[in-house]
Amino acid sequence: MVRLYHVALSPFCRKVRLTLAEKKIEVELVEERYWEQGPDFLRRNPAGKVPVMKWDNRTMSESQAICEWLDETIPQPPLLPRDPDARYEVRRLCAWFDDKFHNEVTSKLLYERVNKKIMGLGYPDSKAVKAGATRIKYHLDYMGWLLDQRRWLAGDAMTLADFAAAAHLSCLDYNCDVDWNRSAAVKEWYAKIKSRPSFRSLLADQVPGFPPPAHYADLDF
Amino acid sequence: MVRLYHVALSPFCRKVRLTLAEKKIEVELVEERYWEQGPDFLRRNPAGKVPVMKWDNRTMSESQAICEWLDETIPQPPLLPRDPDARYEVRRLCAWFDDKFHNEVTSKLLYERVNKKIMGLGYPDSKAVKAGATRIKYHLDYMGWLLDQRRWLAGDAMTLADFAAAAHLSCLDYNCDVDWNRSAAVKEWYAKIKSRPSFRSLLADQVPGFPPPAHYADLDF
Repeated sequence: MVRLYHVALSPFCRKVRLTLAEKKIEVELVEERYWEQGPDFLRRNPAGKVPVMKWDNRTMSESQAICEWLDETIPQPPLLPRDPDARYEVRRLCAWFDDKFHNEVTSKLLYERVNKKIMGLGYPDSKAVKAGATRIKYHLDYMGWLLDQRRWLAGDAMTLADFAAAAHLSCLDYNCDVDWNRSAAVKEWYAKIKSRPSFRSLLADQVPGFPPPAHYADLDF
Repeated sequence: MVRLYHVALSPFCRKVRLTLAEKKIEVELVEERYWEQGPDFLRRNPAGKVPVMKWDNRTMSESQAICEWLDETIPQPPLLPRDPDARYEVRRLCAWFDDKFHNEVTSKLLYERVNKKIMGLGYPDSKAVKAGATRIKYHLDYMGWLLDQRRWLAGDAMTLADFAAAAHLSCLDYNCDVDWNRSAAVKEWYAKIKSRPSFRSLLADQVPGFPPPAHYADLDF
């Protein structure tokens, strides 16, 4: 039995969901109001964050550690290449999105506008929202530059780096925060990853009070 | 030729320095005023962060990606175990320290009191400092709990998780922010790791305007 405690618009949860789905692992999703830090949740994960994965009797946390474990224990399809240099590039880009992109964009757009409201933390800080909206352009350009040289973000094969990036962008797209006209290469890459069966569960997400725009689940966006 | 662009009191740089030293790789250290974001530096690393490692003609960033690459290309001594479950635990703890501990403690104590001054960003926010000083107790207790069951943080062998933790604690200890009397197990673990030859370069660090306390470099602290 695999259970994932998650929230729908968490890029870290989405990265794990994509990895599980690519590995053809059925998972029971349980919405977790982690910000309430209930004692049951803190017993499951003293770090107080989602995702938390229950795998038989094990309780696992930290999205990157979970994804690498899944790739090591269920090798097909591989989500990290075998060559150390190529693996480095995948890990560098996962960190790029989960750290830099997260701090500069996701936390400033999504967390300000959606998470704050859900958690009852008041109104968005418009300076932060503006900074995030400016900064995402730089990141889309960087992705476009990478994709002009490569089929996928970290090289010629699809890897965990693509899932990390797509997890963030799909959360932002739920809120209309991605300008898909900025880079043809990025749009083509996202269309490719969005049409994978592993993406379906993400496209079916519905957050109460925040209906997704029509293009969100449309494969021809 | 290996060159590391770094700052002395960055836990991420220290994790890479410890890994290089354990692998017996000689490295030229270059102090980098990364917060000035000079064009040369941004050319080396568009993420605008340290550490940046030059390895022959390659330029590498993101401390965890660098350390895993070093462990894959220079296998002796191993800093990650071979078993996937044990590797998961190492990666979980690296993320614990580099994300959770960093946000709750290092950024609140060290960055408020030292980095802000060096970067000319004004005075420390006393509320942040107080929050960090409270939170470090919880983390030391968590480490003590782990070390009551294990010889090293992630199991019975020394791993990258120990370096991640020691990198943060050594930066804080430079500023007298660690209460070594809180947990005998943590103190014993730190004494063990501090006495390794790989630690010597860290203990010789001197930050202008911030002389270290006498116990900082003392192996019998």
